[in-house]
Amino acid sequence: MQGLQLRSLVKESGELELSLQRVDVPEPKDNEVTIRVEATPINPSDIGLLTGPADMRAAKASGSKDSPVVTALVPPNMMRALAARVGQSLPVGNEGAGTVIKVGKDAQKLMGKTVAVIGGAMYAQYRTARAADCLVLPPGASAADGASCFVNPLTALAMVETMRSEGHAAIVHTAAASNLGQMLVKICLEDGVPLVNVVRHPDQAALLRDLGAKYVVDTSSPSFFDDLTGALVATKATIAFDAIGGGKLGSQILTAMEIAASRNATSYSRYGSATFKQLYIYGGLDTSPTELSRSFGFAWSIGGFLLTNFLQKAGPEQGEKLRARVAAELKTTFASHYAHTISLAEALDLSVMSAYLKRATGEKYLIAPNKGL
Amino acid sequence: MQGLQLRSLVKESGELELSLQRVDVPEPKDNEVTIRVEATPINPSDIGLLTGPADMRAAKASGSKDSPVVTALVPPNMMRALAARVGQSLPVGNEGAGTVIKVGKDAQKLMGKTVAVIGGAMYAQYRTARAADCLVLPPGASAADGASCFVNPLTALAMVETMRSEGHAAIVHTAAASNLGQMLVKICLEDGVPLVNVVRHPDQAALLRDLGAKYVVDTSSPSFFDDLTGALVATKATIAFDAIGGGKLGSQILTAMEIAASRNATSYSRYGSATFKQLYIYGGLDTSPTELSRSFGFAWSIGGFLLTNFLQKAGPEQGEKLRARVAAELKTTFASHYAHTISLAEALDLSVMSAYLKRATGEKYLIAPNKGL
Repeated sequence: MQGLQLRSLVKESGELELSLQRVDVPEPKDNEVTIRVEATPINPSDIGLLTGPADMRAAKASGSKDSPVVTALVPPNMMRALAARVGQSLPVGNEGAGTVIKVGKDAQKLMGKTVAVIGGAMYAQYRTARAADCLVLPPGASAADGASCFVNPLTALAMVETMRSEGHAAIVHTAAASNLGQMLVKICLEDGVPLVNVVRHPDQAALLRDLGAKYVVDTSSPSFFDDLTGALVATKATIAFDAIGGGKLGSQILTAMEIAASRNATSYSRYGSATFKQLYIYGGLDTSPTELSRSFGFAWSIGGFLLTNFLQKAGPEQGEKLRARVAAELKTTFASHYAHTISLAEALDLSVMSAYLKRATGEKYLIAPNKGL
Repeated sequence: MQGLQLRSLVKESGELELSLQRVDVPEPKDNEVTIRVEATPINPSDIGLLTGPADMRAAKASGSKDSPVVTALVPPNMMRALAARVGQSLPVGNEGAGTVIKVGKDAQKLMGKTVAVIGGAMYAQYRTARAADCLVLPPGASAADGASCFVNPLTALAMVETMRSEGHAAIVHTAAASNLGQMLVKICLEDGVPLVNVVRHPDQAALLRDLGAKYVVDTSSPSFFDDLTGALVATKATIAFDAIGGGKLGSQILTAMEIAASRNATSYSRYGSATFKQLYIYGGLDTSPTELSRSFGFAWSIGGFLLTNFLQKAGPEQGEKLRARVAAELKTTFASHYAHTISLAEALDLSVMSAYLKRATGEKYLIAPNKGL
């Protein structure tokens, strides 16, 4: 059996080439299944592998409508960081869902089931995977319902777990109106965790308030910094998860935390408050440099935050518990919303690409790999 | 008894006022001593309290030669961070050394001894302190020899201890030709810890090589980044202590660590290497914002590093061990060098101030509070 698969290749020359390849679908081994992929989201983390640091504003289309090819150039100074992938045609797509159409002899009970999988190579018509890696969706849930049931739900849950394990009382979250952000609002309401939502537009603030969010601050408001500080005084949040990455927002959050911490200080310390402030950067919606004013004393840390690393530290038992919660609340807490559903070929259409590469809140794309085939 | 004491006051109006005040010297209690302060260094951390964020380029002098007053303005946007010190006339000077001239009844054995003290208010003719806080200098050591025996020596030792306790194999240090940096070179040679020294001029590189430093890289060299990466490949250093703070250097170090870590990687990970990279910022020689390119994957952390916090975590026993090592090696490993010795009044002379506020490597200032009195 063969099927189409989306591939990303960075050549020695610095040229990025995206294409659809017709590849052999491996027969499932005893403990494996083959899935017809019906829904797979375009997450920011997928875009990292798909286009990497290539300059997509100058991308060029070639090939045919059914077999499109997109090329673009990687800036020379970024090639060093890509050394390990140069010359390899890589499949793309972290997660997705579909119907099991073939089973190995130890996986027969999955035949015909709608399952979700994480593990890469999901931007494809078919995917052979270990049965143990499949999450069987609850009755009534479609592949589209389950397509995003790993990355966003588990990342949102990982944030709350990290807050608890690192001894913080409340959370700050940026780009908070994202699909992930909406899940986090619901989780925090259920779990009684105070959450300060940072959004970029009044309509995003309204959306979160409609979900029940209590603290929503808007970077487009002239009173943003004071609003943020007020919310931090009220919640005592000392850990933030930032999807933006670039610019001054992370630094502003740490500064506001420091002001909130020292508001009740009785004596001056030249080294700032003793309250430890943690900022985790988990995304790069703004790819420009992070700018830190360092006006927040010495008791602070900034780090990268990655679901894979969290799950490794947390261990399989904890991971299983979180996955079970996602399955149980798939159509409520962890419901994802897509603005557009596209085919594999459309995923390589320049005008469609320029839209989803914006990674705009409320403009999420879902690929239906068997659409139009 | 009275004596002169240097004071720093930030007024509600935003005016910083530095002055010499004649203050009462407290009589020593039973377990206390009074020290005639003979040598106290101007460390970058002292400058933080002395001038804070005031714009010293526009500072004005008034008062008399013996009783100088310096005023300058704090930018309005920085006043919020200073709320806790507004209106308080604060003494300055973290550490220093001198002769014990009065003792309480339980501290008689310290009479006449040359001792070093940490704890603030050392920019003064006299300082009453707890006997337990005094470090008796070894025979033959002068007050000038012992004036800097806490902040720099213990910070350098704390870096090596932190490297060990956080599981790293080697250290990167910036502004590495500083007094602290020279101590770190000697400690690392003694302890067999690979150290990558980052300096800003060829003559600083030569100075460190003369001390026996093996890895010295110079930011003024066109091959700096490659030199740094090469040193990181050789040493496997994954922890850095940065005195600069502002600009791109910290980010470059993390990026070079990432390249060194992935040089032998066999497969590409879009999330970067799994090698954890730590950058600690312990100074702010460049007060401009820290700029992070985030081209170093997700396994990284940046944090503030402060001796006080280290000592609190390490506990009194460990602190005692480190202090004993400093005393034993005071005139070798932990020898400090001063380019200028000034009086209290000279410390408030605008032309002297503009020199020491540069915090230039090799231009360290020592105050002799009883000079000229």
